[in-house]
Amino acid sequence: MAKEVTNRDENYSLWYNNLVVKADLAENSAVRGCMVIKPYGYAIWEKMQAALDKMFKDTGHVNAYFPLFIPKSFLSKEAEHVEGFAKECAVVTHHRLMNSPDGKGVVVDPSAKLEEELVVRPTSETIIWNTYKNWITSYRDLPVLCNQWANVVRWEMRTRLFLRTAEFLWQEGHTAHATREEAVEETEKMVNVYARFAREFMAVPVMVGSKTASERFAGAIDTLCIEAMMQDGKALQAGTSHFLGQNFAKAFDVQFAGKDGKLDYVWATSWGVSTRLIGALIMAHSDNNGLVLPPKLAPIQVVLVPIFKGEEELSLMREHLAGVKAQLEAKGISVKLDDRDHLRSGFKFAEWELKGVPVRIAVGPRDMQNKPLEVPRRDTLEKQTVPVEGIAAYVENLLTEIQQNIYNKALDFREKNTFTIDSYEEFKTRIEDGGFFLAHWDGTAETEAKIKEETKATIRCIPNEVTPEPGQCMVTGKPSAQRVIFARAY
Amino acid sequence: MAKEVTNRDENYSLWYNNLVVKADLAENSAVRGCMVIKPYGYAIWEKMQAALDKMFKDTGHVNAYFPLFIPKSFLSKEAEHVEGFAKECAVVTHHRLMNSPDGKGVVVDPSAKLEEELVVRPTSETIIWNTYKNWITSYRDLPVLCNQWANVVRWEMRTRLFLRTAEFLWQEGHTAHATREEAVEETEKMVNVYARFAREFMAVPVMVGSKTASERFAGAIDTLCIEAMMQDGKALQAGTSHFLGQNFAKAFDVQFAGKDGKLDYVWATSWGVSTRLIGALIMAHSDNNGLVLPPKLAPIQVVLVPIFKGEEELSLMREHLAGVKAQLEAKGISVKLDDRDHLRSGFKFAEWELKGVPVRIAVGPRDMQNKPLEVPRRDTLEKQTVPVEGIAAYVENLLTEIQQNIYNKALDFREKNTFTIDSYEEFKTRIEDGGFFLAHWDGTAETEAKIKEETKATIRCIPNEVTPEPGQCMVTGKPSAQRVIFARAY
Repeated sequence: MAKEVTNRDENYSLWYNNLVVKADLAENSAVRGCMVIKPYGYAIWEKMQAALDKMFKDTGHVNAYFPLFIPKSFLSKEAEHVEGFAKECAVVTHHRLMNSPDGKGVVVDPSAKLEEELVVRPTSETIIWNTYKNWITSYRDLPVLCNQWANVVRWEMRTRLFLRTAEFLWQEGHTAHATREEAVEETEKMVNVYARFAREFMAVPVMVGSKTASERFAGAIDTLCIEAMMQDGKALQAGTSHFLGQNFAKAFDVQFAGKDGKLDYVWATSWGVSTRLIGALIMAHSDNNGLVLPPKLAPIQVVLVPIFKGEEELSLMREHLAGVKAQLEAKGISVKLDDRDHLRSGFKFAEWELKGVPVRIAVGPRDMQNKPLEVPRRDTLEKQTVPVEGIAAYVENLLTEIQQNIYNKALDFREKNTFTIDSYEEFKTRIEDGGFFLAHWDGTAETEAKIKEETKATIRCIPNEVTPEPGQCMVTGKPSAQRVIFARAY
Repeated sequence: MAKEVTNRDENYSLWYNNLVVKADLAENSAVRGCMVIKPYGYAIWEKMQAALDKMFKDTGHVNAYFPLFIPKSFLSKEAEHVEGFAKECAVVTHHRLMNSPDGKGVVVDPSAKLEEELVVRPTSETIIWNTYKNWITSYRDLPVLCNQWANVVRWEMRTRLFLRTAEFLWQEGHTAHATREEAVEETEKMVNVYARFAREFMAVPVMVGSKTASERFAGAIDTLCIEAMMQDGKALQAGTSHFLGQNFAKAFDVQFAGKDGKLDYVWATSWGVSTRLIGALIMAHSDNNGLVLPPKLAPIQVVLVPIFKGEEELSLMREHLAGVKAQLEAKGISVKLDDRDHLRSGFKFAEWELKGVPVRIAVGPRDMQNKPLEVPRRDTLEKQTVPVEGIAAYVENLLTEIQQNIYNKALDFREKNTFTIDSYEEFKTRIEDGGFFLAHWDGTAETEAKIKEETKATIRCIPNEVTPEPGQCMVTGKPSAQRVIFARAY
């Protein structure tokens, strides 16, 4: 293979970085912590955006756009919020450069200092609630159901392509409601939209649950989340939906007159997923040959590779393959014809495997005489021979099967690596090997912190989908209402 | 009408601002010069994005994403480029806030000063060409045809919603080519894509041409543009496409080995349109009743307004109108049913007129007995009565007709306000009334500057579509190769 990828079992972390770079998804930029999302990686993001945007609109949301900059004083208005974000803010202090007095390049013009510094948004609750103040006066103005597709900046010290970068792309929903019940319902609705997206499009089984107080979003009353298991047994938080209560409405004085004319503060939610999902997608499915992409998010679903000698053969095959391509495209399948004439087909096979294209069809000159085609699938690397005439229907079914198979495989992996555990001693040993651990916890932040310090495991969520069964905390023996999920996480 | 709009002929500028705010397109934010794009305005941008993105992909381009931040030193690498942008840069100098020593709010943490300041991108040539350096080594890596949808910041002192804001949304194409010819061809191809978009989607007739040296993009060898005429006779630059020669390749040392193995610098183009197009759209078509939106970009193409008394009637009509709505939607028409029960229908009519919805259908209870429907169109405000059974086909045709009519009206306006002129004295008087003036110019920056100073008119472009006819400069009498277009501009 032309571009070798580190073995997954030898060094998971290096394997991941290798894949991202060699499959042309993204690379580090000249700006510390900021990545360049390359066309192939961005095409996956576009597919994710299209699917999510449709789901948001189908649930009544509209898109809008709010400023990139947030006045410094806005951040301070919600106490927990500023505590959570102040330490990782990119701060704009000046609005002009000038020629350097020494004649070399440019310097910041000291006379162009801003009266109030601006923070590059790490999230937009403050600027949005300051705006909602002007939009909402009566119950008739509610609900407000806005989403924004945007870039945000959090000055992370240790960054990693897609998983943790100083700048990332995301969507952030910000909704305003007349009642607590409606806001809670919205919070749940959106975490379920995320769960459905992860399962149906990403083929990633996720656990839905609530965060503990110490893992909540800064400023939230409750944070719901979806948690996925990566192939090293670590957890990855893939999306969050926050019930914000009246915190931001109070901080920005957003009140509305109800049907009875009485004033009350507005109830809020916010929810988001980011380009981090691409990291989750890679870590959940890929192997030592490269990416394994679920067909629903693969920029290229089928690659056609002609095997030929010389210009004349290639030109005949191009004609023949144009027909095959048209057949597939008529079914809405995205097809790439790789007719580059300076590369060996073996090289091409390896490249498309590395890039995770779900289905490959290699065609030699003999195949043009209506011989069956060889069709390897990326997920299992198995081949089938298929007659030319039925190829489109076959591939269409195969793509559905691959999507399902990838999901089943990930679900199977998660089930095999999810354990019910009652002994903290045993927990301390077994957490080393990764996995989700369903254990009892006494509900205190102290015990949670002790476990984190001693094992690097955190409570990923208090799961929704498990019937609560009371017990005793594995650390303190105190009563516990239900098991929670512990894991080490990205 | 509930929300009155200033008369267009009395105060064009105030009329525009009024419309933008009252039609719920955008508003000023708490951050100086930055706007909030409201859902209705953003929906227009989404329609523009979808159409443009398809045109870019159909011409072989792919999307990617590059960092928001540009190291200060990068800007200096291309001499004209830094000259053009240094004076309006938002500069990030720190990466952390801390609690204020006086206990009030947060302040910039002086210990978190960046080693090198970062500029929020005003445009991305520098960071992108620094990246392309790693992507391009051989002629086989060319062309690179990337586009980016992004936000950019230019610290403008006098801002105006959509037309000139500190932050705006845009797309920027950045392409790399092996030959000058190919890059020039790309520059022309993309300005023609913009022209087609303006004409076919925005219903705005545009002039295509080249900028003079003094109006070029900072760092370009040639800037092509599309120029539109607004209803006050002023010009608005609606899109630009730059041939950058080898300037950025040289600044960032991007060389490739040709087929013959020889190294050469890569040839570049860049091209962009922005949310400014929404401003152009408004100014080109709207009237004293509000927006007039071309059907192809209208978020809502048809509004159904039931006229009813009481809950029972409304509920019957909802049922009836659901059928009409389904008929229209089956033809791919976007329909809004305005069944709000606390507003008079007269209020609703005015509101949808203000918002520029191309077609309105008002339905009274009597109309349900298969009486013909009243269908007013927004562009001419004329009504037709149409039988219920043929409504979908009628509306489909009507939308096409409105799209064409809006274009024709704008073209007619432009033609009536485009003048061939030879006397500078006459020019100085007539420029006060607006319009495009085709005049001879001696080709010098001095004459151009003199005209600008004396009349506030600039050369909008050296038009492509006019057969060159030599003559004498209206100011100096020196020889001129062809007439150019002068106008005052936004």
